[in-house]
Amino acid sequence: MHFTAHDIGAMGSRYRAAFINSLSGFKPANLVGTADAAGNSNLAIISSVVHLGSHPPLLALIVRPSPVERHTLENILDTRCYTINHVQQNFIEAAHQTAARYPREQSEFTATGLGEHWVTGFAAPFVREATVRMGLELREHHHLQINDTHLVIGEVVLVDVPDEALGEDGAVDINAADSVALSGLDSYYTTSRVRRMAYAKPDLPPRPID
Amino acid sequence: MHFTAHDIGAMGSRYRAAFINSLSGFKPANLVGTADAAGNSNLAIISSVVHLGSHPPLLALIVRPSPVERHTLENILDTRCYTINHVQQNFIEAAHQTAARYPREQSEFTATGLGEHWVTGFAAPFVREATVRMGLELREHHHLQINDTHLVIGEVVLVDVPDEALGEDGAVDINAADSVALSGLDSYYTTSRVRRMAYAKPDLPPRPID
Repeated sequence: MHFTAHDIGAMGSRYRAAFINSLSGFKPANLVGTADAAGNSNLAIISSVVHLGSHPPLLALIVRPSPVERHTLENILDTRCYTINHVQQNFIEAAHQTAARYPREQSEFTATGLGEHWVTGFAAPFVREATVRMGLELREHHHLQINDTHLVIGEVVLVDVPDEALGEDGAVDINAADSVALSGLDSYYTTSRVRRMAYAKPDLPPRPID
Repeated sequence: MHFTAHDIGAMGSRYRAAFINSLSGFKPANLVGTADAAGNSNLAIISSVVHLGSHPPLLALIVRPSPVERHTLENILDTRCYTINHVQQNFIEAAHQTAARYPREQSEFTATGLGEHWVTGFAAPFVREATVRMGLELREHHHLQINDTHLVIGEVVLVDVPDEALGEDGAVDINAADSVALSGLDSYYTTSRVRRMAYAKPDLPPRPID
């Protein structure tokens, strides 16, 4: 089926949101943990974390202008730190529930039953259940006026991964760690590795290594 | 296993690249198609496409300062349009091979055997083999000085999806379309849906709908 800009503009807003959200491809499913200056915790599922670079180790994320994500952004700007925790298969339902519009004074940890894990000297909570999780320090914040979203860039300063998921070459087998992928607004997927590819070179044919 | 900023800084650069690239979670696998002003085609695998908003329909992507991705960026800035094509299971190897450093005058379409599909009036090539693909017009370009990457924001103006993958609510079943996910630098995954969740509300428990 073929759609033009006119067809997309004529879609109802819920239909278009479901449609456009499907187009970027599979998304990472992460919980972003923050706290306000008084230490009150907040947790939000975010599907827009993206790798920015490894030296320095930077991840970016897009924060939307919804009430739920605004609490997260305000906390990040206040404390200049946050955590990113992979959503894993055994807590998909609790992770999804953090998207509900809880009032600011209610912690999504308490509301969903997910546990807080605090590291001394780091002002944002990790998710106790997550076995792949990292702590970040805010480095840059850009307001994207085109649609009132925010690009948040942070440096990875703490990482926990399961011993058995860490490969000899540094790659973390996030499939073995039961991390899940998202599609669209609400669909969660487990994964199966079909191919690992060797570094691509112009004078060699593509070469699977696994 | 626990890593501090000091541990990360002490990693060798290849090890750190594999490690940090694994941390953002599963990534979308997309081929970005462009052409220069003379119509010479270019194709690059990009794992950083991210949903920015559905009204207007905007996707963002990060372009890294590598020779391969620089050709893509230059073409986008020249012609102000590009295509995003899902990598699907039957052409993973050719898609990965577009990451090789081919000279500028060699098209990755020709080099990898992927086919060009042109739409009248649109100055960038689509991938013939891709059943989920879109055409975008450049809206904004930001240079991120922190690590010399580029944020490219485009509006979706053309979309092709398989009829049978389009749901009644507008969601596209990209798993049924055989789109794949990426992890790290080189690992490709198929997916299985484990849960579709109802819209989360504060006063209701999490509710799977599928």
